[in-house]
Amino acid sequence: MNNMPSLSQSLLDYQNRNNAHLGQWLDTQPFADLALIQAMKHGTLLGGKRARPFLTYVTGEMLGAERDALDTPAAAVECIHAYSLIHDDLPAMDDDDLRRGQPTCHVAFDEATAILAGDSLQTLAFEIMASGLLSQDGERQRVAMIKELATASGARGMCMGQALDLDAEGKQVDLAQLETIHRHKTGALIRCAVRLGALAAGEKGVAVLPQLDDYADAIGLAFQVQDDILDVISDTQTLGKPQGSDIELEKSTYPALLGLDGAQAKAQQLYQQALRALEAIPYNTEQLAVFARYVIERNN
Amino acid sequence: MNNMPSLSQSLLDYQNRNNAHLGQWLDTQPFADLALIQAMKHGTLLGGKRARPFLTYVTGEMLGAERDALDTPAAAVECIHAYSLIHDDLPAMDDDDLRRGQPTCHVAFDEATAILAGDSLQTLAFEIMASGLLSQDGERQRVAMIKELATASGARGMCMGQALDLDAEGKQVDLAQLETIHRHKTGALIRCAVRLGALAAGEKGVAVLPQLDDYADAIGLAFQVQDDILDVISDTQTLGKPQGSDIELEKSTYPALLGLDGAQAKAQQLYQQALRALEAIPYNTEQLAVFARYVIERNN
Repeated sequence: MNNMPSLSQSLLDYQNRNNAHLGQWLDTQPFADLALIQAMKHGTLLGGKRARPFLTYVTGEMLGAERDALDTPAAAVECIHAYSLIHDDLPAMDDDDLRRGQPTCHVAFDEATAILAGDSLQTLAFEIMASGLLSQDGERQRVAMIKELATASGARGMCMGQALDLDAEGKQVDLAQLETIHRHKTGALIRCAVRLGALAAGEKGVAVLPQLDDYADAIGLAFQVQDDILDVISDTQTLGKPQGSDIELEKSTYPALLGLDGAQAKAQQLYQQALRALEAIPYNTEQLAVFARYVIERNN
Repeated sequence: MNNMPSLSQSLLDYQNRNNAHLGQWLDTQPFADLALIQAMKHGTLLGGKRARPFLTYVTGEMLGAERDALDTPAAAVECIHAYSLIHDDLPAMDDDDLRRGQPTCHVAFDEATAILAGDSLQTLAFEIMASGLLSQDGERQRVAMIKELATASGARGMCMGQALDLDAEGKQVDLAQLETIHRHKTGALIRCAVRLGALAAGEKGVAVLPQLDDYADAIGLAFQVQDDILDVISDTQTLGKPQGSDIELEKSTYPALLGLDGAQAKAQQLYQQALRALEAIPYNTEQLAVFARYVIERNN
């Protein structure tokens, strides 16, 4: 008998929990009827897989953290992700009109509001981390988590990834450079989501951080490889964002460098790498393993 | 005999100290030759009065905090201010080409880089607060300061002020609405700068927070009133940014609502209010008093 819920049910449960929690935080913001708050909600609550919160919850619960104490880092990491999507979609960046099957923030509102909504969501992430419920381990744990989030988000992580990506547009980029871009742009925050779950579990979590890093690095890169593959083989409706936009922006991608077969083999190889990392972790890693497979098998 | 250094010397000393400290933080960021890091430095290190760091240092030292322990909040608050200027200057916002006598960030680099530089400077502020040296009061103090910074910066403070300001463009705004805009847009971060200095001093600082709030609220608003006055009476070269830009953007200002004489009287009245707040503080408030006069007498 297997009492483990299927991944899709499990993803959905955590999605709902994360949405409810984010909604509560957004409802505490002042001037609720102003475009800024509406735009923050638009960018956060309308769809999305909630992969990062899922990783925080599953990693933390695997290591014995209370679900209530994981709401805080899960909400914070999703705020960072949501802000990055709003800013990446701006005309001066990737200039995308469609995201999660909805008009992007600057299309639904305007550019100024989208910039400010992204800015405010980044701040909200740190407000949540500084104020939200955590376990009883005290303020040292909270500070470690804030440091983790800051390191993953800014010029050491995600923002640098986007800068490297923009810098590479229209240029010939080799595999090593492409990996550097994605380890920053997508990988850093995925790794952060896993690490926040571990830190919320205290000592037990800290002890397996290196193994979790290996796992997160593999699925973080696999996530991007699969994104690149989907940009080639999927369609706009399934993706919820324009298919073929990488080609249009002359972005370097794994299929472009390795061919479609080569990119699919790369995704498989990263999946195996993730599983090997999990073998070194003496807890029930099944949910993390199922998620790794989902990363390379998903169609949107 | 008066051993107190003059304000201009004191401002300069703290400016230099803050610049050196910010420079060190910026030098620890990776990919130093990339436009992103250059743009972060451009937006942070090229000029500026450093009013907020000054307030953090002076408030903290008045209450007995070590100068070394004030470097951290002073640098963090300036990073938030610098990021807000970069984003406010963007074409989609105030569309300014000149700031501190230099081309604005999106002019010197490009829009995408300016957006990312602002984003990364916001993150850096929280990285600094989470990692930088503080006094020995431990992590509880640090978390209180991070919460303070987040509350002042996002949709509860500065970002909301910019949103309210954009919302008011071209509309008839009364004095109460104008005050609400500026209490958020400029006031929240100035108050935060003062409060961070107090929090760094521990219990002694916490005890006088209400009086410091009164002081900061008065000078925060006075700062904006004087900015509005200078936009009318000064010239572009002295200001380091285009004179008359408020009129061009049809922004509501104190001179527009009260006339120039009325605005000058309002600044005087806020100055007196700041002095009264300081009278209730049982420490040597001379530097804060001199700064309040500077706020309404400065010509740039």
